[in-house]
Amino acid sequence: MRDIAVFSGSAHPRLAEEVCAHLGVTLSPARVSRFANDCLEVQLRANCRERDVFLIQPLVRPVQEHLVELLMMCDAARGASAARITVVMPHYSYARSDKKDTPRISLGGRLVADLLVAAGASRVLTMTLHAPQVHGFFSVPVDHLHALRELAAHFRQYDLSRTTVVSPDLGNAKEAAAFARRLGARVAAGAKQRFADDRVSISSVIGDIAGRDVIVLDDEIAKGSTVLELLDRLRELGPRSIRVACTHGLFAAGALKRLGEQPDVLEIVCTNTVPVPEDERTDKLRVLSIAPALAEAMRRIHDGESVSALFEQPAEA
Amino acid sequence: MRDIAVFSGSAHPRLAEEVCAHLGVTLSPARVSRFANDCLEVQLRANCRERDVFLIQPLVRPVQEHLVELLMMCDAARGASAARITVVMPHYSYARSDKKDTPRISLGGRLVADLLVAAGASRVLTMTLHAPQVHGFFSVPVDHLHALRELAAHFRQYDLSRTTVVSPDLGNAKEAAAFARRLGARVAAGAKQRFADDRVSISSVIGDIAGRDVIVLDDEIAKGSTVLELLDRLRELGPRSIRVACTHGLFAAGALKRLGEQPDVLEIVCTNTVPVPEDERTDKLRVLSIAPALAEAMRRIHDGESVSALFEQPAEA
Amino acid sequence: MRDIAVFSGSAHPRLAEEVCAHLGVTLSPARVSRFANDCLEVQLRANCRERDVFLIQPLVRPVQEHLVELLMMCDAARGASAARITVVMPHYSYARSDKKDTPRISLGGRLVADLLVAAGASRVLTMTLHAPQVHGFFSVPVDHLHALRELAAHFRQYDLSRTTVVSPDLGNAKEAAAFARRLGARVAAGAKQRFADDRVSISSVIGDIAGRDVIVLDDEIAKGSTVLELLDRLRELGPRSIRVACTHGLFAAGALKRLGEQPDVLEIVCTNTVPVPEDERTDKLRVLSIAPALAEAMRRIHDGESVSALFEQPAEA
Amino acid sequence: MRDIAVFSGSAHPRLAEEVCAHLGVTLSPARVSRFANDCLEVQLRANCRERDVFLIQPLVRPVQEHLVELLMMCDAARGASAARITVVMPHYSYARSDKKDTPRISLGGRLVADLLVAAGASRVLTMTLHAPQVHGFFSVPVDHLHALRELAAHFRQYDLSRTTVVSPDLGNAKEAAAFARRLGARVAAGAKQRFADDRVSISSVIGDIAGRDVIVLDDEIAKGSTVLELLDRLRELGPRSIRVACTHGLFAAGALKRLGEQPDVLEIVCTNTVPVPEDERTDKLRVLSIAPALAEAMRRIHDGESVSALFEQPAEA
Amino acid sequence: MRDIAVFSGSAHPRLAEEVCAHLGVTLSPARVSRFANDCLEVQLRANCRERDVFLIQPLVRPVQEHLVELLMMCDAARGASAARITVVMPHYSYARSDKKDTPRISLGGRLVADLLVAAGASRVLTMTLHAPQVHGFFSVPVDHLHALRELAAHFRQYDLSRTTVVSPDLGNAKEAAAFARRLGARVAAGAKQRFADDRVSISSVIGDIAGRDVIVLDDEIAKGSTVLELLDRLRELGPRSIRVACTHGLFAAGALKRLGEQPDVLEIVCTNTVPVPEDERTDKLRVLSIAPALAEAMRRIHDGESVSALFEQPAEA
Amino acid sequence: MRDIAVFSGSAHPRLAEEVCAHLGVTLSPARVSRFANDCLEVQLRANCRERDVFLIQPLVRPVQEHLVELLMMCDAARGASAARITVVMPHYSYARSDKKDTPRISLGGRLVADLLVAAGASRVLTMTLHAPQVHGFFSVPVDHLHALRELAAHFRQYDLSRTTVVSPDLGNAKEAAAFARRLGARVAAGAKQRFADDRVSISSVIGDIAGRDVIVLDDEIAKGSTVLELLDRLRELGPRSIRVACTHGLFAAGALKRLGEQPDVLEIVCTNTVPVPEDERTDKLRVLSIAPALAEAMRRIHDGESVSALFEQPAEA
Repeated sequence: MRDIAVFSGSAHPRLAEEVCAHLGVTLSPARVSRFANDCLEVQLRANCRERDVFLIQPLVRPVQEHLVELLMMCDAARGASAARITVVMPHYSYARSDKKDTPRISLGGRLVADLLVAAGASRVLTMTLHAPQVHGFFSVPVDHLHALRELAAHFRQYDLSRTTVVSPDLGNAKEAAAFARRLGARVAAGAKQRFADDRVSISSVIGDIAGRDVIVLDDEIAKGSTVLELLDRLRELGPRSIRVACTHGLFAAGALKRLGEQPDVLEIVCTNTVPVPEDERTDKLRVLSIAPALAEAMRRIHDGESVSALFEQPAEA
Repeated sequence: MRDIAVFSGSAHPRLAEEVCAHLGVTLSPARVSRFANDCLEVQLRANCRERDVFLIQPLVRPVQEHLVELLMMCDAARGASAARITVVMPHYSYARSDKKDTPRISLGGRLVADLLVAAGASRVLTMTLHAPQVHGFFSVPVDHLHALRELAAHFRQYDLSRTTVVSPDLGNAKEAAAFARRLGARVAAGAKQRFADDRVSISSVIGDIAGRDVIVLDDEIAKGSTVLELLDRLRELGPRSIRVACTHGLFAAGALKRLGEQPDVLEIVCTNTVPVPEDERTDKLRVLSIAPALAEAMRRIHDGESVSALFEQPAEA
Repeated sequence: MRDIAVFSGSAHPRLAEEVCAHLGVTLSPARVSRFANDCLEVQLRANCRERDVFLIQPLVRPVQEHLVELLMMCDAARGASAARITVVMPHYSYARSDKKDTPRISLGGRLVADLLVAAGASRVLTMTLHAPQVHGFFSVPVDHLHALRELAAHFRQYDLSRTTVVSPDLGNAKEAAAFARRLGARVAAGAKQRFADDRVSISSVIGDIAGRDVIVLDDEIAKGSTVLELLDRLRELGPRSIRVACTHGLFAAGALKRLGEQPDVLEIVCTNTVPVPEDERTDKLRVLSIAPALAEAMRRIHDGESVSALFEQPAEA
Repeated sequence: MRDIAVFSGSAHPRLAEEVCAHLGVTLSPARVSRFANDCLEVQLRANCRERDVFLIQPLVRPVQEHLVELLMMCDAARGASAARITVVMPHYSYARSDKKDTPRISLGGRLVADLLVAAGASRVLTMTLHAPQVHGFFSVPVDHLHALRELAAHFRQYDLSRTTVVSPDLGNAKEAAAFARRLGARVAAGAKQRFADDRVSISSVIGDIAGRDVIVLDDEIAKGSTVLELLDRLRELGPRSIRVACTHGLFAAGALKRLGEQPDVLEIVCTNTVPVPEDERTDKLRVLSIAPALAEAMRRIHDGESVSALFEQPAEA
Repeated sequence: MRDIAVFSGSAHPRLAEEVCAHLGVTLSPARVSRFANDCLEVQLRANCRERDVFLIQPLVRPVQEHLVELLMMCDAARGASAARITVVMPHYSYARSDKKDTPRISLGGRLVADLLVAAGASRVLTMTLHAPQVHGFFSVPVDHLHALRELAAHFRQYDLSRTTVVSPDLGNAKEAAAFARRLGARVAAGAKQRFADDRVSISSVIGDIAGRDVIVLDDEIAKGSTVLELLDRLRELGPRSIRVACTHGLFAAGALKRLGEQPDVLEIVCTNTVPVPEDERTDKLRVLSIAPALAEAMRRIHDGESVSALFEQPAEA
Repeated sequence: MRDIAVFSGSAHPRLAEEVCAHLGVTLSPARVSRFANDCLEVQLRANCRERDVFLIQPLVRPVQEHLVELLMMCDAARGASAARITVVMPHYSYARSDKKDTPRISLGGRLVADLLVAAGASRVLTMTLHAPQVHGFFSVPVDHLHALRELAAHFRQYDLSRTTVVSPDLGNAKEAAAFARRLGARVAAGAKQRFADDRVSISSVIGDIAGRDVIVLDDEIAKGSTVLELLDRLRELGPRSIRVACTHGLFAAGALKRLGEQPDVLEIVCTNTVPVPEDERTDKLRVLSIAPALAEAMRRIHDGESVSALFEQPAEA
């Protein structure tokens, strides 16, 4: 079969290196230049001709720089006669812009999907989209992974006999439930709903919390305010211990520091879909690597094996 | 401005007639023929040239017949030089096919959106989509109405001082909350979550029910099993009265009969986005017409006035 | 080379099974579900990734159900990363909707071709299109087979020394002439022309009929009225025997019964591009299988061998 | 409404002038230059911005020069911000390339349709396509006129009481029959069919010829061999007089001279969709102008009135 | 005609305000938000429905932020049913990325053009592209203005009897020559050519410099090194005075300060296509407004009048 | 890997034969027919199915015939299921139509690029485009070769110690400089600039000419007037000898004869991208073959090896 060629943009080169190590291929070099007029230029510095090209770039801060860079990488690979271009976007931040809840706004989740295709992307590999419907924004095939296997492996080191997995949002509790199943744990959910003008809200935590070892599980933590509010509510119910886990650790606006300062939070677990700066890390932070999962998915995409067989229908523990 | 021309497929001609009466235009005739080989042919029997054409067709049972008919109406209007083709789809049933929760399934909500555009649709006018993200499946502009104003007008005939609006699903409780605001009522929500293999579920009703006049509000009622389960739960909490309301009254598999037979359900309210056969109607059923709303939206689309100004941000008392 | 994967819709699974038997591959399972709201969902239940996928579905009654199902199969295969999607449509019923002979009608033959491409079809394999120009309605490659070889093999069991092949329509007599060449027979043609308002018609049978063994050959028989009229005319000319043959045996509105009741019609021959219900079959009916031809064409498409070499330029007998 | 702007390529400027005279607009100037390297450049020398632009160019000899010129006119109009670009192609010669009767040939009728759209054409106005299916090759709206009204007006100067209209080809006899209806005449048809290897043919003339005033009607006459063969056959049947008529008078390879030399052909009638060189004209030739019809169609296209109302469903005399 | 609606991104709101003042319309409000995850969202806060929408945004530093913002403005306007979307990009910085002089690089000038169209742009209004071929990168109509009229008006305040306009680059001297014609001045050009590996260069100034009042004219000044080198060469030839002018004053990396410090440079003239920060301005800087020109072009685009008539073929002084 | 199949249009079959000889493959036969109505039809007479198809056709005189022929070859290959279609266009004459220097002209360089893609071209292999920006007119990958290696090999037979390579146009002197580097020679350039109305021009030759062996190098020579003017200027500077070289020897309007008659021009060197008629050749003409270079590029394209490695970054002599 055609050879594989893996390139990394400047968003998360360390993850790309790690993926390549697992794949057993060398990360091909790419050069990103900035001209005096602030325009970017990307050069892929290895032969792409008839290659199965993978471009690794999570859409993390600075998002616009990384997005344009990624579009240029697609364009360069297409112009260089790549046989296929798979965008590997472990974090698709624009997935949150998924509905028109105000008139005349841009629909970023769909727009960026269309831009990637216009720039030459043949397919997308991504992880834990904010809403499953975002899959349907892409006109090219999408492989949508999750990190439950990695998170579960981490928590199995603990005694899980009294564990409850808590989703901050009942509407999205499906993933928390699937995670609980993996751990043989119970599931609970926060039921806080705020509405546009803050005049109506419903608040509650449904499920067993008292005396339980709680794992709060969310898809991403940005400013952390949702989790902090949930913690207040949980404390009223008397849990035995609290841990916090998520796939995408964005930790904006000092979120990591604030979460770490909560004395009853024993641990904050995330994956490396998003790079966490060294100087923001706390002792309580554990970063799990999804590089093996990405590498295995890329290998299967390249070899034409089923990806869903591996990731979407996990056998029970 | 260019003249307006409104056509109806065979899905709901009575609604189309009503819309035209409100618009003050004559419904233009269309002919749907079926050949000996079961293929359809559509003829639009009025001049479309440079006209602002509206095609009214909710995707109701038999859905596939009505869908192909609608695609042919688009094609015929395009071939007949329509200036613009607005698909008026008061019920977009395929919106429920909005995610890939199993490998290798079709994504009907996106596919049908693409087919409509391939057949010539310039824009879409629809009502109460099952998930707001479905808006992003369309590559043409969508006007997305809801029926809260019509439903509210109906319920204002009652004493609303002790009313609670109940959403069967907390995840979609936003619309129930908006409705409660319109009525000056409280809001509550069912918190039942079932999962694929039925091994994990969370059940609860959050909010004040005891002694309240309850209005259960859902986007659509098909087989009605969700509502029936919610009624069981509500009864445990002692409401003073129960009414059921929805936008899309599909009432499949005898749902209307079963709901009507619940003695404590005083009223079942839906709109006419979907035609309810005469012989299935019960005394408890009230069908509200969204024809005035559709007509007003069509007038604004035609005249280039803001649609969101009217429907999406109503200022309440 | 990439593996082959063959799926069948619900239109004609028996034909698909037979094709797979000839190809020596297992028919991959597909699931078609219908929701409470009458919407369809298709799941392809075998890995499609980088596979050479073939979807077998003639557009037979109920045509709209089978068409939407086929569009969903294309969409599912595309979303599942099929390398190539060949729609195998042994009967393309919408090919009859090939011209705008009335203002503002849909052009079904072109529209459905565009819809298939919009849904993901990479190429089409079909049989005996009603008009050869329909080939040009597709923007993807089409392999257009005919069934003359199968029909000829059947008739060679008879003494063909006094045989005349009769086309009901002189305008489409080319296929009848090619068939006659294969059999070493003579050719004749009906010359009936009806016009829109029935005021002008030309009627005649051109060629030798008296004392000949006649084979009436048409592309399809739906209601059978054209053939029945031709039989009346032929009888005036004193043929020795009459047999009727076609590729697509649609047999609508009791056509098979009526044809079978003609005492001088010795045999009705068709192929299995269209499924004939068991309970409509008569003793006079012979159904020839085009499964070997489809299988051989699919093998050649898969292996990159010339299809025209086999089917379009048959060596003379 | 937006102003109209009419340009002519170099294929038939005299027709364009005549059309403009009927429309009451000035033909806008266009410049076609040829560079030293034989490349063409087109400049439209009047403002196109937001105009309703019509480009008049039949695809006549030298076809390739005129085709590329037309594509460039479309491109120039699009680049110059035309609101709409209607290609007025009174003769679409590539319509004859409408089927794949040999493997691996180009399908000119569909290809050129796609090229025109790629170059910017918004719609097409054409006349008497060789096969009605060619309409379906275009992905933009087509107005398809015929010249029967003009031809009928010409022949009404004669005594038509014993007239028979003869189509050389029974398969395409529909137009001859429609023409006969207009004249209150009878219809007949040649039934000659030749096949690829000349081994099978059917020959006959069906209808009343003896003692009749015959009008042979074809869509186009190129080399004229079909008509000459039909004349031989007609003479055997003893007509009283013979006239020949067609829409497109291509008259290649001395056809006009050869037809004119037939002593019993009283008249050769064609329209000016194709320019006939002055020095090839004979006394027997009558060229009817379709400029009034084109002008009226263009006016209706511009004003958004029905074109079919005028041309496709003529009221009987 | 449809109303006009003008929005500004955050790149250069002051220019947009000025343009609107000249147009006599109010600048419509737009809101650009940044989420916690660094994603942008744009809301157009005025009705766009059937409006002729103009989006003003030069691609200036930070270029990637402004580009994504502009793409979102296009998307929002399209989704809000704008009748037409004109991107007003007075400075198209990516025009410099116009060729593949190294293998496997992105071609930014073409890519960004395609992205704008993918996001919904119907047309583009821009100024002084770095190379005229960049016009051909866009698949939508482009109006390409220049600022020679504004620059000429400025310099006419001086005695121009001994003036020579100098282009730093002979290859692009066409604009300098056109400018000289406007001023009735002579033209000269630098002939410096550097090549990739700096091994070959040609250096010269062709034309009369000694004793002349020199105006150095370039399309843009970024780091200013080309101009500084040209100044060295000019000084060797004894000019009487030196002024520097350009359309796009990017002035990166302290260029403005360095140029201003050249004692013999009397004046630095640019236009306001790019905002110049207040604190970088020097006494020698004159910023001319192209707002009247943009406004006039927008008015003509809106009214369907010729833009080239005004800007591209100026009458001589 | 898939087999290669090479076809030639009628523009330059001798070059195609030569390329195939170097590739070691047989040129596959193609048939171009012309119908009585002057329309073309192309048949590719060898299996294209899943083949890697190359179509060799420089756009030389008669350009329009060869262009339409090439578009049909693409269409035929696409319809015949080619896996990939590479247009090998050693001379892309329409590259000169690369800018809109007059209002409302066609932009031939971009239009023809789009037409090729619309007709089915997957990629393009071309040589020495008039401007490097033309690369960006194509939406498919382009391999852009030059002939410097071939030209250099030819001139190395001479003593090059006193050689100067002269570009007629300083703006395009980059190629001349690269050529000089290859030969270890000096570089010079003509600096003639004419402007639209001939009122301003700059004339000069920059670089050492006196006593040097001059090689005038241009991309193409059509009418030859630019070279003839440059020769006049060079003679004033006293060169020791003059040779003329170019890639594309169009030699229109007797250019070859006129150049050959210049007594001091020792040699005229071009390549065979364009066929030079036997009867126009002069003793001074040397035609170098680029067939080996094209063959090697095609082999690398087919095998997925880097083309730039070979042609775009030549190692120094």
